[in-house]
Amino acid sequence: MTKITLVGAGSAAFSMNVVKDLCLTKGLAGSEIALMDLDNERLDAVYSMAKSYSVAMGANLRISKTQDRRDALMDSDFVIDTVLVGGHEQQEIVRSVGEKHGYYRGVEAVEFNMIQDYSTTFQGYYQLKFFMELATEMEELCPDALLIDVANPEFEAGTLLAREKKIKVASYCHGYLGWIEVAKALGLDPEEVDFQVAGFNHNIFLTRFQLGDVDVYDLLDEWIENKSQDYWSNYKQKNEFDIHLSRAAVDMHKLYGLFPIGDTVRSGSWKYHYDLKTKQYWYGEFGGPDSEIGWARYLNTVKERTEKIFALAGHSGSELLSDFPPVKSREQIVPLIDSIVNDRGERFVLGVRNDSAVAGLPSDVVVEIPVQANQKGLSPEKIEPIPERLTRMVLFPRLVRLEMALEAFLKGDRSLLLEILYRDRRTVSDVQARQVLDEILTLPFNEQMRKHYS
Amino acid sequence: MTKITLVGAGSAAFSMNVVKDLCLTKGLAGSEIALMDLDNERLDAVYSMAKSYSVAMGANLRISKTQDRRDALMDSDFVIDTVLVGGHEQQEIVRSVGEKHGYYRGVEAVEFNMIQDYSTTFQGYYQLKFFMELATEMEELCPDALLIDVANPEFEAGTLLAREKKIKVASYCHGYLGWIEVAKALGLDPEEVDFQVAGFNHNIFLTRFQLGDVDVYDLLDEWIENKSQDYWSNYKQKNEFDIHLSRAAVDMHKLYGLFPIGDTVRSGSWKYHYDLKTKQYWYGEFGGPDSEIGWARYLNTVKERTEKIFALAGHSGSELLSDFPPVKSREQIVPLIDSIVNDRGERFVLGVRNDSAVAGLPSDVVVEIPVQANQKGLSPEKIEPIPERLTRMVLFPRLVRLEMALEAFLKGDRSLLLEILYRDRRTVSDVQARQVLDEILTLPFNEQMRKHYS
Repeated sequence: MTKITLVGAGSAAFSMNVVKDLCLTKGLAGSEIALMDLDNERLDAVYSMAKSYSVAMGANLRISKTQDRRDALMDSDFVIDTVLVGGHEQQEIVRSVGEKHGYYRGVEAVEFNMIQDYSTTFQGYYQLKFFMELATEMEELCPDALLIDVANPEFEAGTLLAREKKIKVASYCHGYLGWIEVAKALGLDPEEVDFQVAGFNHNIFLTRFQLGDVDVYDLLDEWIENKSQDYWSNYKQKNEFDIHLSRAAVDMHKLYGLFPIGDTVRSGSWKYHYDLKTKQYWYGEFGGPDSEIGWARYLNTVKERTEKIFALAGHSGSELLSDFPPVKSREQIVPLIDSIVNDRGERFVLGVRNDSAVAGLPSDVVVEIPVQANQKGLSPEKIEPIPERLTRMVLFPRLVRLEMALEAFLKGDRSLLLEILYRDRRTVSDVQARQVLDEILTLPFNEQMRKHYS
Repeated sequence: MTKITLVGAGSAAFSMNVVKDLCLTKGLAGSEIALMDLDNERLDAVYSMAKSYSVAMGANLRISKTQDRRDALMDSDFVIDTVLVGGHEQQEIVRSVGEKHGYYRGVEAVEFNMIQDYSTTFQGYYQLKFFMELATEMEELCPDALLIDVANPEFEAGTLLAREKKIKVASYCHGYLGWIEVAKALGLDPEEVDFQVAGFNHNIFLTRFQLGDVDVYDLLDEWIENKSQDYWSNYKQKNEFDIHLSRAAVDMHKLYGLFPIGDTVRSGSWKYHYDLKTKQYWYGEFGGPDSEIGWARYLNTVKERTEKIFALAGHSGSELLSDFPPVKSREQIVPLIDSIVNDRGERFVLGVRNDSAVAGLPSDVVVEIPVQANQKGLSPEKIEPIPERLTRMVLFPRLVRLEMALEAFLKGDRSLLLEILYRDRRTVSDVQARQVLDEILTLPFNEQMRKHYS
């Protein structure tokens, strides 16, 4: 019997997807699913929906709930972590302090530290701290379990745990599915296309793109040559994340030699982020997710989706079946567990310790690449070479930022936080850097962080 | 008989030092010294001074002059290159174009490309081109000669040649002698101190600093604790380069764990360079060499020194002996040649291909470290470990910049020049980056460069 634990199960949309996928996965019948969250109200709502749904599906699942993480972790085989400590609310407060001090929003994951802006950079402290505590408990309570991390910052968190902890970790980010949108835009059936991505989380590129003997890159180049202008003039974006074939994506492709996938497109360099108009040129009408417009939309979507799901809390089993039609989601977490438990050897894109999978990168960092999952573990497939320019201009600078962030965190070194700020192009004076750091650290919810960095 | 060729011999102060040191070095008696420059007037002046001086000293040297580089190189054993293509004049024009477009002067060698600002970054093209041509001729005319490079950008040039050419190269920069100033400020006799520096050119740090059993770093920390405030309030700087113990140097030491030496102090990060006032805080009254004040002083010093030397051109041998008192200079070029020719095994600080001398850095880049020089060549001594933080925050980012600069140069890739600009914190819009690049490339003396990058 397999025990699957969801830490942060109050993320209702995510949890219900997992539950639904489990109900639809025969190989995992009989599993226990432990829902854990500190927020009792949300936890109760998700728990009752999950139970009713499972019963209505006639699935053979044991569903439990707890606010006690230790209980949840005990004897787990798989631990799924979705926690964003402080949530979007605190993130937005930190972001607004940053913008007040001249740190205009935008992603420069290549040149700077983490996806998004100061909201995650500095709040990253709580995320990393949470990961370390979770891993410490796992070492004690379920030392053989696999931690599947879906919470940011995945690159930093995964690398931190790979270096500091003994548990098994894999990061999962659905951003890589963006390759499907690229294939579709070229008029291809994704089922027929062979792809490979590689890089760091939020910095992955298509290292292989084949349709039988045809290099899809040739089709892509044709599309860029003949159809991209028309596309950029007329395409109606589905939402602010629909930037798969944006000007920014094509520009990055030209520069680095490989096509960027998923969130990678958000973080080419600051050249896409000078101001809203610039963002709109590169990312379309919403300016991408990292603009004033796009991020507000995203927050609103999250809010509406959450409210909508919790509004279903009292629904009967049969109502829930129409609320959550019993079709497998695109998420790969349950298939991953199934493949490991039942030794299926299926292919997944995951963040795993590099060892020697990607040539030219250190062994002790987490890379995002396709792996084969079976009972023995996760085996990376052979990764196609990454162009030197991409390694030099994207991956190395990103890696340097990770190292600075992890060292600041591990040493609690406040001066290093300041030095990270000095290396931020938005810093134009010493006073500015000190003031923004002071103000962030004196936010009421940052008391722990302030102590850590004192 | 040893043939020593000076390419760019019109740099009178430098050339006269070499000639003087040669006259004072018995082991090199009988050598031929070939003075080569395109500027015939300067060449003549240096040649006649060198000849008169050598005769007055009773030295046994054969001195020749030529404007033909091939003649000069033929059968050379040592080639010394001091050439700055276009000189300071062109450099200043490029700098002023940069400043007009918002690229305020300052060094950010760590985060950006090369020492100084756009004047060398982009004009670097002519330097690298010159090096490649010189090396190609050397492969043909004096394949066993050692090229001793004293021209910037040494890190880029040395690495480029180490990768692309077959000749032997060593870079020499007297910046490392700054360690002596640090020792003296602590009241120590440099003769009694054991030191080691390591890093890249203009990014070197004291990896060892010993006085017998005493770690001089302990004395330095004491000095910082008890005397630095007083020093910063009262010390009278000799000139704009006298920043060895500046606030910036001490700040870098605290952050990186090792003390920065020589030009390294200029390039800690942009935090020392926001504006003139900031520069003066970190570097003293002149704001260091990379301020409006400091650089004007430096240019003036160079001008006055040059005029002063050329004013001596008609002097008799005995007058020249008092103009250039026959005491060995601090420069290590002639001692280096002497040590190699006469197999003395003396110690020098030089830029050489890393191979495995400095752990954690690639083999195919040039590092600046102490080496032992004898007939067989240059053997690196054992290099003390460099703190990880320093490698991550200084050396890796600097290396990334080198790779970008060399790739742009080798491929003639204009878009890469723009990308370098986008990664410059001073760039605040696409238009700005394109305009400054256009204007620099349309300067009359940049015609070749414009074609290369078209």
